[in-house]
Amino acid sequence: MRTAGDYAQDNAERFRTELHEWLRIPSISTDANYAAECRRAADWVADNLNGIGMEAEVIPTKRHPLVYAEWLGAGPDAKTVLIYGHYDVQPAVKEDGWATEPFEPIEREGKMWGRGTTDDKGQLFAHIKAVESLLKTEGKLPVNVKFIIEGEEESGGENIEKYVHEHPEKLAANVCVISDGSMARVEQPVIVYALRGIVPLEVTVTGPKQDLHSGMFGGSVHNPLQALAEIIARLHKEDGTVAVPGFYDDVRELSEEERTALAKTPYTPEDWQADTGAPEPWGEADFAIHERIGARPTLEINGMAGGYWGNGIKAIVPEKAWAKITCRLVADQDPAKIVQLVKDYIESITPSTVKVTFKSTVTGTAAAQVDMDTPMMQAAIEAYKKGWGAEPVFKREGGSIPIVSDFLGVLKQPVILMGFGLNTDNLHGPNEHLRIDMFHKGINTSVQFLREVAVL
Amino acid sequence: MRTAGDYAQDNAERFRTELHEWLRIPSISTDANYAAECRRAADWVADNLNGIGMEAEVIPTKRHPLVYAEWLGAGPDAKTVLIYGHYDVQPAVKEDGWATEPFEPIEREGKMWGRGTTDDKGQLFAHIKAVESLLKTEGKLPVNVKFIIEGEEESGGENIEKYVHEHPEKLAANVCVISDGSMARVEQPVIVYALRGIVPLEVTVTGPKQDLHSGMFGGSVHNPLQALAEIIARLHKEDGTVAVPGFYDDVRELSEEERTALAKTPYTPEDWQADTGAPEPWGEADFAIHERIGARPTLEINGMAGGYWGNGIKAIVPEKAWAKITCRLVADQDPAKIVQLVKDYIESITPSTVKVTFKSTVTGTAAAQVDMDTPMMQAAIEAYKKGWGAEPVFKREGGSIPIVSDFLGVLKQPVILMGFGLNTDNLHGPNEHLRIDMFHKGINTSVQFLREVAVL
Repeated sequence: MRTAGDYAQDNAERFRTELHEWLRIPSISTDANYAAECRRAADWVADNLNGIGMEAEVIPTKRHPLVYAEWLGAGPDAKTVLIYGHYDVQPAVKEDGWATEPFEPIEREGKMWGRGTTDDKGQLFAHIKAVESLLKTEGKLPVNVKFIIEGEEESGGENIEKYVHEHPEKLAANVCVISDGSMARVEQPVIVYALRGIVPLEVTVTGPKQDLHSGMFGGSVHNPLQALAEIIARLHKEDGTVAVPGFYDDVRELSEEERTALAKTPYTPEDWQADTGAPEPWGEADFAIHERIGARPTLEINGMAGGYWGNGIKAIVPEKAWAKITCRLVADQDPAKIVQLVKDYIESITPSTVKVTFKSTVTGTAAAQVDMDTPMMQAAIEAYKKGWGAEPVFKREGGSIPIVSDFLGVLKQPVILMGFGLNTDNLHGPNEHLRIDMFHKGINTSVQFLREVAVL
Repeated sequence: MRTAGDYAQDNAERFRTELHEWLRIPSISTDANYAAECRRAADWVADNLNGIGMEAEVIPTKRHPLVYAEWLGAGPDAKTVLIYGHYDVQPAVKEDGWATEPFEPIEREGKMWGRGTTDDKGQLFAHIKAVESLLKTEGKLPVNVKFIIEGEEESGGENIEKYVHEHPEKLAANVCVISDGSMARVEQPVIVYALRGIVPLEVTVTGPKQDLHSGMFGGSVHNPLQALAEIIARLHKEDGTVAVPGFYDDVRELSEEERTALAKTPYTPEDWQADTGAPEPWGEADFAIHERIGARPTLEINGMAGGYWGNGIKAIVPEKAWAKITCRLVADQDPAKIVQLVKDYIESITPSTVKVTFKSTVTGTAAAQVDMDTPMMQAAIEAYKKGWGAEPVFKREGGSIPIVSDFLGVLKQPVILMGFGLNTDNLHGPNEHLRIDMFHKGINTSVQFLREVAVL
């Protein structure tokens, strides 16, 4: 009898050709100019889901639409798996350092290259093709399956949050699986049980009423770029800790047992060096690199600008300077409280020679720690062993998946973070990619997971 | 008999219409993309000079051409006046905050608005129209007159420097007059006897090999924007002085007599406030505001950038961050030595977690202090009294006119800095302008100066 695995193998190339079509849609959710492209990406995946035998719908929201799909043929007594993913991507232009056009995916060196290949279209598509492979060979799935796919993961995700709160019954399931993560080596899959949260803040420092001639006024005006630099320099202490008073007050500290477990798969300085290319590690000396990333909050300057940075010289004292900041949070820090602490501190250290203002348009996301004490975790371990060919380890991850907090808190579902990418795939940077073999292992692992859940 | 003054009055409107035509050419010398526009601006002024009876030529250089013109009809025994100006302008786009297009000059509220109106096309053009007014009414000039007009004043001026060194005999004169400055009030003209120099430096801080996901790596990588901010914050001390060791070693200190003379026309905090719009003055507490600007060196951040500053959020640790710095210098600081001191200091405070590199493509300009003990200064005082209608005071200015050092040092000519603008004309900023009455007073003062020099 022809298995789902056979089918996936026979159709491997066609699966990827379909994915390339989806990747070509620049569904950048952070930039309102790309709203129509987000809509196109939502329609595309809904069509694909309908085509494989799911019942899919595009659900309008105040910003980018959601896509929901279901196959409930296993019946009310069978288990239900909710699969989450997102069709939106980070901004990308070739000038950022891409070797090829970010929205013209190509395959070479055993990888698919393009924005969204790993974050998250490629990983999500592995589940869709797993479901197709089962339906086309067995005519049914071993469990009920629901997909919920959003278009705002890279930009706040407030509409799926709203939807989850308003429609918990529609998304009811025994487990949620999310593939939006990564592992260090293909031979060693990981299951992530903790994620950091994130909260953004923009700071603007203004001085003179307009750009001034630096000869005519320089020496008498506090330069806003200098003032902003002086403020930013005081946001961290020499030891790498964040200097904002109260910043660490609510941090859930690592237990010794947890530190020991995490130390089994450390992130070595050598691995770190290869991944980052930075001269040497930086950060809190009391914590290992993987702990700094997985278990400690940060305050990061994502962008800063002011004055003139075109060709040549423009001898000015600029009118203003601004910085985009995000804080990564760990359990049990409250995003709103952290933003307030940062604002209060910046106000307290801003000299009277300049003015400071803040913009904080996007709601933050709290960190999430997933309960490891569930049979669903055993199903995931078995799925990796049979579908991927290796037993996974457990780890914490430094990124944020806003929806995990909601699935945990509102839907009361265990959430399995089942990554199919590598953490060197350059998600968010130029030359994002996904290994082709990992895409196909992902399909097999997803098929296996549905089977394991069915027999629990 | 019809005087030059009558002629200038009768032709006032036509003079300004011609100037508008010149102002429409965006001769931005700092940006190589505008090289052709610089050439057009040079051709335009050469044509205008030929049209009024001068013999003008466009002299190619390795970058933007020079324009030279002469009328030597007063004979070898008569005095010779060299008039210097520049046809190049600072960059300007409407989005910077201009009320009207910067290269579509208009007249309203008694002012001409547009890039270059005061710096320096408008001021230089007053001299050209003074010469025209004399030639068209008297058929000759009271002295020999030479014009030397460059196109790189805003971007280094290395080619006029070369030309001055190579052709001192061609530019030989008894005095050089430069109108590229300004006064606080129209009723109180000033003669500037000291100018600051300037020297630029670009600093780039690099960390990781590319932009990194701030979740996956944040907390373990020294953020280049943060590192650059930390470096910049250490370039000044809390008291507003520059922290670079040796920075002040060669500074020619103000004498008590000079401080007393300068205090006669102080730059009050109220004037400063009205001009800058900044919350309150900043800088070296031991010096008055006009001293900080005129007599003290600075280290200014003209621009800084790194990471993402578009719409929305991009949660990255950026690959690099860079800052454009200029130091304003006073006599007797050496530009090359100052750049080296700043580089050495920055290198010494850069942590091993990031790398720092420098770019310093443009040669600096030393400060210039002009000898006040010359009869030419008396001629200038008389010219203002008769042509402008008020007796000038003497002051120091914070800006830089690179060529002054060369005229002083190589040509051994006294240099008279005879400003026709206001220091609120927004040169280098948006909405640059020149009062129409000051343009015409400038023409009269220039006519008078040539007459005063003739009778010395």
